[in-house]
Amino acid sequence: MGGGPAGLLLSHLLHTSGIEHVVLESRTRDEIYRTTRAGILEASSVSTLVDAGLDRVLREGDRHDGIALRFDGESHRIDLHGLTGRAVWLYPQTEVFTDLADRRAADGGDVRWQAEVTEVLDLGTDHPGVRWTDAGGAAGGTERELRCDVLVGADGSHSTCRHTLPESLRRHYVHEYPYAWFGVIVEAPRSAPELVYTASEHGFALISQRTETHQRLYFQCDPDEDPSGWDDERIWGELQRRVAGGDGFRLVEGPVEERSVLRFRSSVVEPVRHGRMLLAGDAAHTVPPTGAKGLNLALADVVVLHDVLTTWFARGGNGRADDDLLDEYGRRVSERVWRAQHFSAWMSRMLHSHPAESGFEARRRVAELRTLVDSEAGRRFLAEGYTGWGPIITEGAM
Amino acid sequence: MGGGPAGLLLSHLLHTSGIEHVVLESRTRDEIYRTTRAGILEASSVSTLVDAGLDRVLREGDRHDGIALRFDGESHRIDLHGLTGRAVWLYPQTEVFTDLADRRAADGGDVRWQAEVTEVLDLGTDHPGVRWTDAGGAAGGTERELRCDVLVGADGSHSTCRHTLPESLRRHYVHEYPYAWFGVIVEAPRSAPELVYTASEHGFALISQRTETHQRLYFQCDPDEDPSGWDDERIWGELQRRVAGGDGFRLVEGPVEERSVLRFRSSVVEPVRHGRMLLAGDAAHTVPPTGAKGLNLALADVVVLHDVLTTWFARGGNGRADDDLLDEYGRRVSERVWRAQHFSAWMSRMLHSHPAESGFEARRRVAELRTLVDSEAGRRFLAEGYTGWGPIITEGAM
Repeated sequence: MGGGPAGLLLSHLLHTSGIEHVVLESRTRDEIYRTTRAGILEASSVSTLVDAGLDRVLREGDRHDGIALRFDGESHRIDLHGLTGRAVWLYPQTEVFTDLADRRAADGGDVRWQAEVTEVLDLGTDHPGVRWTDAGGAAGGTERELRCDVLVGADGSHSTCRHTLPESLRRHYVHEYPYAWFGVIVEAPRSAPELVYTASEHGFALISQRTETHQRLYFQCDPDEDPSGWDDERIWGELQRRVAGGDGFRLVEGPVEERSVLRFRSSVVEPVRHGRMLLAGDAAHTVPPTGAKGLNLALADVVVLHDVLTTWFARGGNGRADDDLLDEYGRRVSERVWRAQHFSAWMSRMLHSHPAESGFEARRRVAELRTLVDSEAGRRFLAEGYTGWGPIITEGAM
Repeated sequence: MGGGPAGLLLSHLLHTSGIEHVVLESRTRDEIYRTTRAGILEASSVSTLVDAGLDRVLREGDRHDGIALRFDGESHRIDLHGLTGRAVWLYPQTEVFTDLADRRAADGGDVRWQAEVTEVLDLGTDHPGVRWTDAGGAAGGTERELRCDVLVGADGSHSTCRHTLPESLRRHYVHEYPYAWFGVIVEAPRSAPELVYTASEHGFALISQRTETHQRLYFQCDPDEDPSGWDDERIWGELQRRVAGGDGFRLVEGPVEERSVLRFRSSVVEPVRHGRMLLAGDAAHTVPPTGAKGLNLALADVVVLHDVLTTWFARGGNGRADDDLLDEYGRRVSERVWRAQHFSAWMSRMLHSHPAESGFEARRRVAELRTLVDSEAGRRFLAEGYTGWGPIITEGAM
């Protein structure tokens, strides 16, 4: 269940392993494509895509070897590649989605768009299933039922599958943040060659990029902020005062084409298996956007899940012992999930002004940033988290 | 004002520079000596003492080249010396005090014990002073007045001097913690060769050392905990369950000889100069005990303050321009003070269970600890903070 990047990557990998499956996705392909999402891929995510034969990211994505931390009106570059041997790629999630959707279509993959699941069936048995409404094709509106050996919930943060986990088994770890991001897409040239994470007395701002002509910018706002109340002038004014500094750095302005508020939430659900259902990606965990871990975690989940499913099907795929084998998935992804949770929470707290922040905390955060950028070890520790703790990608490999 | 380690070290340094001064301390020498305090000196603090001719620390202190972080019932050594080239010394604050007090006495230093300051006079002028009661000597109870060029408030966290800073000028940065340390001195052999900072589901514990026969141990408690309600058995039970783990680590038990509750508080007052008065050590800033920065910060303050005062007196020591020169002191110590504030707050938050902590936060903290100990950069970043960002002390130098 779920035809976002996690579901489609799993579908592609299952296809290469010859494991028969169907993808059910409630939205249309175009709806997903039009949703603006994160844009940073860790090197290991890029490897995953390239290994799957999807190498457009290498041609059309932008490799970034560093980021800047900006505070007290001064930028400090973190040389990600120099410190860890790993880079990241600026390549919007919608492009990852397009690559995967195109490939599934080309390979004749069975992806049902606008497939509304109304009920998950018999999870405790060897033949779980779903009841769903086919609203997409010629037979639109037809109620259908599908039975399977394994059901994967890659159906996003509002996951239907997650909610079928019985309350008595489910542990839900949640943290809410008292701030959000006001995200805009603007028509303007780049103001900086790499991402600039900015802490200022007026709050956080992130200067990101998209293309030669369009850029992605964010600034910290109240979670209940109404983006319609902001005209271009007010948006640019807010961004400029947050990045202002002694070095005279200014953003190149242009028309604001999109504006939306991104909520912050850390959540982890455990276990990720219940009977023959497994959760992956946002259905299992969400992170705040600071540090851009969400998509990367989802792709990493799927690689492990595919590996576990392949073994499980090879061993016959049934019997109690084999169901326990499915728990290998949760055991293998858990450490990365929690590292990413810590990293995202740390970056968020270090860079944002808490609305009720004391003077002590504001000064402590600046001291934290200074201690970090002044230390090679500190910069490397941050770079390891940002690039994702994966294996070192050598220069030659990519 | 103040005859603790900060005041006495300044007195000693001023003496070596031939600057005439008097030390006024409200307590008796014995009272200060009997107060159990922190026991970890950074390498740069040891250098400061040795440079001042006080080298007993090298003979009787214990050099520690590492600490352990213990969580999930497993210890992870942080090789401080291997990672940073710097060690720390286990040498109780009372011994530092004794070394300094003995040296001042031997050099005929003018240190007035039991000298109660009742009023600070004329701070805004070139001749500030204090009114004080001499309760210590033969002329006990006599009211006296003393005038000076410069008044230094090294009179501790309850500083009289700090309170003379006018409200309109004073910025006071404070952070309170919802936990404290229950500290004990026990008669028992060492349970571990180095300090063990332990995070457990039952709360924090610190296994420290003192001598062959006595050890210093701490465990997290409520700030309002009454130490008299704890017998030996309950204390050992609490310590043992916090350090328990899969490796079978247990503390060697023995009679509890001292028990007290240590409050946590982060505070910084700015500015540290008002007219001809300067604040140093705990009078200017306090840190929670995690990371043992308090005494080290005080000694580092005093080294800078002595340097600034020497220059100031050499230039004649009066006139508006020269008073501004005194601000050099605050500018030079501020960065280290805030780094230490961040470090102490970070260590405290990472290792203690907040009483209202969510399941998410508890898991995040373990993930933080794991990410840190699994990374050479993480361990080094922590070690840099723990050993104090000072210049590298080479093996030969000490």
